[in-house]
Amino acid sequence: MSTPTPSSPLVTPGSCSIMGELPRVPSSLALSQTSHTGTDFPTDAFMVGSTLPKEHLHVSNTEMELKTRSIFTEASLNETYTSSLNEDHLNDIELTCCSQLRALNLPLPPLRKIPTLLKKLYPPTFPNLPLSAVRVTRALLDVPHNLPVKELDYGMVSGRNCDNCVGYVPVPVGVAGPLRMGVVGEGGVEDKEFMVPLSTTEGGLIASINRGLKAMRGGETTVACTADKITRSPVIEFQNLREAVNFKEYVESGAEDVREEFEKGSRFLKLKEVECKVVGRVVYLRLSGETGEAMGMNMISKGSESLLQHLQKSFPFKILSVSGNYCCDKKPSALNLIKGRGKSITLECTIPEKTVKEVLKTTSGKMVKLNYYKNSIGSALAGTVGGNNAHAANVVAAFFLATGQDPAHVVEGSQCITVMEEVETGLYISCTLPSVCVGTVGGGTELKAQKSMIEYSKAKGARELACVVGGGVMAGEVSLVAALAEGDLVKAHMELNRAKKC
Amino acid sequence: MSTPTPSSPLVTPGSCSIMGELPRVPSSLALSQTSHTGTDFPTDAFMVGSTLPKEHLHVSNTEMELKTRSIFTEASLNETYTSSLNEDHLNDIELTCCSQLRALNLPLPPLRKIPTLLKKLYPPTFPNLPLSAVRVTRALLDVPHNLPVKELDYGMVSGRNCDNCVGYVPVPVGVAGPLRMGVVGEGGVEDKEFMVPLSTTEGGLIASINRGLKAMRGGETTVACTADKITRSPVIEFQNLREAVNFKEYVESGAEDVREEFEKGSRFLKLKEVECKVVGRVVYLRLSGETGEAMGMNMISKGSESLLQHLQKSFPFKILSVSGNYCCDKKPSALNLIKGRGKSITLECTIPEKTVKEVLKTTSGKMVKLNYYKNSIGSALAGTVGGNNAHAANVVAAFFLATGQDPAHVVEGSQCITVMEEVETGLYISCTLPSVCVGTVGGGTELKAQKSMIEYSKAKGARELACVVGGGVMAGEVSLVAALAEGDLVKAHMELNRAKKC
Amino acid sequence: MSTPTPSSPLVTPGSCSIMGELPRVPSSLALSQTSHTGTDFPTDAFMVGSTLPKEHLHVSNTEMELKTRSIFTEASLNETYTSSLNEDHLNDIELTCCSQLRALNLPLPPLRKIPTLLKKLYPPTFPNLPLSAVRVTRALLDVPHNLPVKELDYGMVSGRNCDNCVGYVPVPVGVAGPLRMGVVGEGGVEDKEFMVPLSTTEGGLIASINRGLKAMRGGETTVACTADKITRSPVIEFQNLREAVNFKEYVESGAEDVREEFEKGSRFLKLKEVECKVVGRVVYLRLSGETGEAMGMNMISKGSESLLQHLQKSFPFKILSVSGNYCCDKKPSALNLIKGRGKSITLECTIPEKTVKEVLKTTSGKMVKLNYYKNSIGSALAGTVGGNNAHAANVVAAFFLATGQDPAHVVEGSQCITVMEEVETGLYISCTLPSVCVGTVGGGTELKAQKSMIEYSKAKGARELACVVGGGVMAGEVSLVAALAEGDLVKAHMELNRAKKC
Amino acid sequence: MSTPTPSSPLVTPGSCSIMGELPRVPSSLALSQTSHTGTDFPTDAFMVGSTLPKEHLHVSNTEMELKTRSIFTEASLNETYTSSLNEDHLNDIELTCCSQLRALNLPLPPLRKIPTLLKKLYPPTFPNLPLSAVRVTRALLDVPHNLPVKELDYGMVSGRNCDNCVGYVPVPVGVAGPLRMGVVGEGGVEDKEFMVPLSTTEGGLIASINRGLKAMRGGETTVACTADKITRSPVIEFQNLREAVNFKEYVESGAEDVREEFEKGSRFLKLKEVECKVVGRVVYLRLSGETGEAMGMNMISKGSESLLQHLQKSFPFKILSVSGNYCCDKKPSALNLIKGRGKSITLECTIPEKTVKEVLKTTSGKMVKLNYYKNSIGSALAGTVGGNNAHAANVVAAFFLATGQDPAHVVEGSQCITVMEEVETGLYISCTLPSVCVGTVGGGTELKAQKSMIEYSKAKGARELACVVGGGVMAGEVSLVAALAEGDLVKAHMELNRAKKC
Repeated sequence: MSTPTPSSPLVTPGSCSIMGELPRVPSSLALSQTSHTGTDFPTDAFMVGSTLPKEHLHVSNTEMELKTRSIFTEASLNETYTSSLNEDHLNDIELTCCSQLRALNLPLPPLRKIPTLLKKLYPPTFPNLPLSAVRVTRALLDVPHNLPVKELDYGMVSGRNCDNCVGYVPVPVGVAGPLRMGVVGEGGVEDKEFMVPLSTTEGGLIASINRGLKAMRGGETTVACTADKITRSPVIEFQNLREAVNFKEYVESGAEDVREEFEKGSRFLKLKEVECKVVGRVVYLRLSGETGEAMGMNMISKGSESLLQHLQKSFPFKILSVSGNYCCDKKPSALNLIKGRGKSITLECTIPEKTVKEVLKTTSGKMVKLNYYKNSIGSALAGTVGGNNAHAANVVAAFFLATGQDPAHVVEGSQCITVMEEVETGLYISCTLPSVCVGTVGGGTELKAQKSMIEYSKAKGARELACVVGGGVMAGEVSLVAALAEGDLVKAHMELNRAKKC
Repeated sequence: MSTPTPSSPLVTPGSCSIMGELPRVPSSLALSQTSHTGTDFPTDAFMVGSTLPKEHLHVSNTEMELKTRSIFTEASLNETYTSSLNEDHLNDIELTCCSQLRALNLPLPPLRKIPTLLKKLYPPTFPNLPLSAVRVTRALLDVPHNLPVKELDYGMVSGRNCDNCVGYVPVPVGVAGPLRMGVVGEGGVEDKEFMVPLSTTEGGLIASINRGLKAMRGGETTVACTADKITRSPVIEFQNLREAVNFKEYVESGAEDVREEFEKGSRFLKLKEVECKVVGRVVYLRLSGETGEAMGMNMISKGSESLLQHLQKSFPFKILSVSGNYCCDKKPSALNLIKGRGKSITLECTIPEKTVKEVLKTTSGKMVKLNYYKNSIGSALAGTVGGNNAHAANVVAAFFLATGQDPAHVVEGSQCITVMEEVETGLYISCTLPSVCVGTVGGGTELKAQKSMIEYSKAKGARELACVVGGGVMAGEVSLVAALAEGDLVKAHMELNRAKKC
Repeated sequence: MSTPTPSSPLVTPGSCSIMGELPRVPSSLALSQTSHTGTDFPTDAFMVGSTLPKEHLHVSNTEMELKTRSIFTEASLNETYTSSLNEDHLNDIELTCCSQLRALNLPLPPLRKIPTLLKKLYPPTFPNLPLSAVRVTRALLDVPHNLPVKELDYGMVSGRNCDNCVGYVPVPVGVAGPLRMGVVGEGGVEDKEFMVPLSTTEGGLIASINRGLKAMRGGETTVACTADKITRSPVIEFQNLREAVNFKEYVESGAEDVREEFEKGSRFLKLKEVECKVVGRVVYLRLSGETGEAMGMNMISKGSESLLQHLQKSFPFKILSVSGNYCCDKKPSALNLIKGRGKSITLECTIPEKTVKEVLKTTSGKMVKLNYYKNSIGSALAGTVGGNNAHAANVVAAFFLATGQDPAHVVEGSQCITVMEEVETGLYISCTLPSVCVGTVGGGTELKAQKSMIEYSKAKGARELACVVGGGVMAGEVSLVAALAEGDLVKAHMELNRAKKC
Repeated sequence: MSTPTPSSPLVTPGSCSIMGELPRVPSSLALSQTSHTGTDFPTDAFMVGSTLPKEHLHVSNTEMELKTRSIFTEASLNETYTSSLNEDHLNDIELTCCSQLRALNLPLPPLRKIPTLLKKLYPPTFPNLPLSAVRVTRALLDVPHNLPVKELDYGMVSGRNCDNCVGYVPVPVGVAGPLRMGVVGEGGVEDKEFMVPLSTTEGGLIASINRGLKAMRGGETTVACTADKITRSPVIEFQNLREAVNFKEYVESGAEDVREEFEKGSRFLKLKEVECKVVGRVVYLRLSGETGEAMGMNMISKGSESLLQHLQKSFPFKILSVSGNYCCDKKPSALNLIKGRGKSITLECTIPEKTVKEVLKTTSGKMVKLNYYKNSIGSALAGTVGGNNAHAANVVAAFFLATGQDPAHVVEGSQCITVMEEVETGLYISCTLPSVCVGTVGGGTELKAQKSMIEYSKAKGARELACVVGGGVMAGEVSLVAALAEGDLVKAHMELNRAKKC
């Protein structure tokens, strides 16, 4: 961020003895905390910070950096780095260095500088610098050994997916399937088969979804993606209401420049709709755009910024915020239920009464009654917005995790209206999910494991991925409603979730 | 679940040649699909199922099981199992066995039976049977190699946390901190310090939270847990409205048997409130209970069931469902906003104007105005229920993942009202999260990595863990609102999230 | 509920002497109840009905009608009907006739037939037949004398505005004003002045609004109507999801026939938007149309029906209901907050600090803080949809009543977001009302008194009328928030609302 | 509308010749506007006000008052006031006086002073001073003649129900009935019969409700009032969160002084619940109280104020507002749906299939399906809170108007969940209205006509009145859902609402 310049050559070594002076500060943090509090070491907003009083810190950054470097270098010279060098040995070296630094009460550089520092310290042939950076960070922050560190490519992660990375949590993945659906497309309905990878720690969930899928295979399932767009809602302020109204009229008129400037955000970005909500002199835009294979929040943020900069030339507004919560991103809102966000999915399935009996062990009549009192009336009583389902969030969360989607999008993604009707042949079900925000590129989908699960699902592209989410949700609805109708829930939970350890 | 019994000894081997006949069925699935379709092999609701017509399956279960066993046994006899045996060798053996089975077009047992089968096949000294089971499952289901399998203790996972387990997705963990707060307790306010482990794939998120924490440390933060209970809402049906009203009167009267029977669900379970919503002859109960260190859904489900069984003796109702969505579990609802669910947390912080300027690079005035138009007015326009915040869901999701909480609880857990006011000394902020469902035991918290992150946070117990969630959320609010006020969002996102791979 | 059994032997056989036998049934009702149960008098679904078993009724309709007629005729022959005949005398005659009929235990015709019957009975020169019909109905139904009957033109009312009409309730009207606003129109902002007639029984309300208007006149108010349309949402069912999707695609494609057929509903009807929400095989249309000076529900219902009949020729759907609650008519919904219904109004006003002090007796700072904690945070806590205001409903209800609007439209019409900011010069306020359903023709606006109040407001047309609603609401917000900020509410209420009778 | 009077140059200097100078000000208002700007005439916040610069007004109040008085006195001396004096003559005198004052360009006293002024002017034997005051106000404000003035007792209205009163609007009243219900009470279910007076201008509404009642009489209806309390929510601010939490703990602990002080608000007031919502240092109380026969807003406001004053002695908080919108008064909120406000009513009815066919002309099956797709799914799609009904607001508004309830309470009063199920014998319906705010004393119920309608309904007390609201609503639901199921709506509307004038 900025270059540290030396100033105080006379620092007493160890004068920032933090451990003794601030008992509440863990040793690990002391290191990072002190790092940016030297007079000439610019504050780094993005690090584990400190509130240490300045008088405790007399070491200059240069001195600190030099010492740190020498310790690491010395250590590394004692070994020959080759590809055969065991990672555990490396780890030992790094941990030793960290201990030495601590013993000297030396401040360490900010966490985010560790990769750069190690780059300087280690030979160019060094095999996995990002992993070393993680290990050093772990050591400095006293991260417990039980947090695994191997099996993740930190070259992909650091600086892209996770700041101050110290390892990962492994979230178990199980598989349900196959999910067979007719996918409504431009040329009609195409029969397809998908697998549903799910990442969860709730025993019984995947088994239940699997049962639902089996029941669905006993009938016929159709799915359609009825809308596809991500949204961003800048909020801007005009001098007065009249100007705000003028702006609305122009922007909603379909002017070509609005489209052009917005789509400068990315070559994949296509404007779908622009809408202005006038609240006095303040205007909330809701910009909707197609974003290809990406979930698209970054893309549309860029497009929004580009458009605003352009419009400011003609309309003298002030940008209050590039997001005014009229998106509405990662919040439970009627807006997304009504207007949709990401992919809007609707599915239907008719399950023969025979299958209902054999696979679901209940009757359509019971399921319909339960679905009505639970998912319609009960949810209405609870003042829900879009929570007219049994447990869509479980499936959405598990699928999102397995495929690298943003788990915060479970909030809108789990809005789902589950409809059940008794029909002549058995049970008619529909599930409608208006706001499934998923992508097959970008963010967590770039991690190897997660990407492999997208492929494994056999979904072709982001829309189909959203269809698979919908299919999984329906399976979960079918199975849980059936289980509840027969009073199985508690029993099943008890058995499955509390099983003795193998 | 049920024991297969042999019946038809005369089946032609290989007569269920699935691969050739049903091209859309993956070979892996074929195995499992056929497994439960034999006449005497009882249907297993919880497995990857099949819709194969019966006439294609003539192999008896006994025969199948025998062949399978012999193949595995033969393979395993060729090796000496010792502790030094490399896991990869084991894997090779297992994969070879699977291929053989496939080559013979032999059906395999249902996925859930694999552990049992392997137990029979492998010698008692075998080191890691659960892992083998996962590997066999992977092989059968053609799971891609990029999904990691090592570094997870499947003895903990299988049958408890994840059905049909085939490995795990690693979700990167970073750390923000320290979070210093005064925690309001019975004896007054106790100053504490916590760390905030976060599991995310969104670059910049942890750095931003870290900045927020730094700003908060420049002021003073206080947190209180104002309520603590989990809820379950059975829905039951009476003969008529009058009976429903009678029931309500009794149950809400504070009768001691209601408490006693409910608390039979667990020795940790304490009844907090019982409420009846009468809708004609149907009653929605909302049972609220304290559940100690557990998040408590299982506990309260048991307590609810126990209570219902007891009450049915005196009141002749029919249980429609042990959950009637008036809990309201994992759905966005005003109910949880109003009544709270899990831990209800409220925090406040006053940040000196100096810190606002130096750390957040903006002014209180700008932040307050933005917070008003975005988190109050914008959210109101969007018809939100409890989404009066900038991005609570991001923090809640990341913290929940890192500490093994149920990510579907992000739906209610991310309800948060962020208040900002300009005061004489700078910025006053409060965050109120009514429905943080967390625990320190049970579910995903039992996994080693996740458990280690709970410990690392230094939260003592589930309530404090919820307080840490609140602290992290507030840090996220402070930092993002500041960034938006200065128009940094898009820029920051672009830089951090799209950084080149190292 | 109870079965009437004959007891009094002195009653004419079959004369259904209800008074003695069914004490809970008012004599008046007895008359009407029996009226439609004769064999040849067709059942009228729309009348005060009966559950009397048929065997108790032996009088034929013809007989009944003849007797009734003779009694009335005889009475009327005794008087000379001239224009000078006092209404009170007429009343006496009518009451006497009714008593006679009762004394004879004769059934009377259904209420809705009374006008027709009187027409036959009275001479053609009879001055006010509709009033006589009301008086006869009153007599038959034992309506208390305290319900006034004069001063209303029942020729306008009967059969159009009110079934079974028996008089009216007088709702006091007071006036606030003037309301001065710049109205944003196509040619810029035009300064206008309006009066605000309000019909209420809440003392202090009009005075408070008047104070608010005075404060607003101290500053400058601007108003804009940002949208104008009424909505109707038929819900229809297809064979399957695919057909539903096809339909959506066609109807939303902008096809010209959709517009044409819809607009056949009325020459004033203009299609604004047609939107389809697909939920499995079921589609909710939301048809939006401009309806000129009428509020427009009838107009758009006709247009919707016309369109559906046309579309059914090409798409084989079944109409479940011409209204599927996705309008959303007279229900509190986020939909109307977000999409608007009727007229969408937004206003702003800046009130100089001097005026705030002198007229409102408080400061901008206090008002802004109160508005934040009450209308934003408090309302958010309450899980409101569009209730982000202090008391919009009071003003909307009072204005709607005074001007003959449908008071059930207060539900959506009172959705209002009140924004307050402290600015350099004083107080900035905006009020945004997305769903003001008003008209200047049709329904209650056709009654003389109500129509005169529309004219008195000086609003030119329905849109301006909605603007006046907005102005009144803002005045109410300004005044009440100021009063609350100074703690005046209870005091004021006590003084004004409970004043001793003069 | 109003006759412009002299803009002539001959006007007495300083005589506030408003018309010429402020062309937008109507002559009528000019009178009132000037009234309070004289030096010794105190500013009246509650009147039709003025923003005239002071220099235009040179007439002293004393002078004004004297002249006004002399004119009126002179006029009145010319007549002998006796009880036989025709009101129209009086009116003429008053109008003449007003004209004279205008002709002189004399300012008039503020509107609210008119009664006092007339009292001084008129002899003590004067028959109806309040009416004269209304007539004078009408004259001054140029109120159109079409607004009726007779038939209302202004002694009851002025200063109590309506400020600046100028007459009234007559709203037609019709009657539906009888409504027979079993009312659940302490001693079991008591069969009762009610009438349903309705005030509306929507043709067909009452007829439809009547049909619904007839269908209900074909079955059996039961009603219960499950809760009864009005609410007020002061919002108060503490120094910090800790104090807020302390306060909550005390107030929710059941301390006796809380009850005592609250109940000082009225001898009818009983504390039901007190709840504190802590949002940082700010606390929203929700005080719930029983209020006897009154709707109770004034009563509870007094009780709340009394309690706050008491608590402030021990807890040093600042009252932000006596109402913090967590009541939630007259706003659409999930809070009232969930917690109830006013009377919470639930009803059920089972209608035999025969009656469904004969009276409702449809089948249970059709009604159930329609009710599901419209009132559950359609309403859920619309993001409603409590709008799960067909048209509850129509009935609630009409009944509220007829019986003098506050029409702004239609907002929460119309929240209603309509449930329909097909049962063996026919149709099962329930309607649940959580927030019916009604009273039988106070406010508009004191007006003679309105009071007479309460009596006419035969409801004994406020709770039964709420039950009657519920019964009317259910009748409306039954009838409209049946009509929609048969596609009758548009047709019926057209016929009934647009009938030719008689």
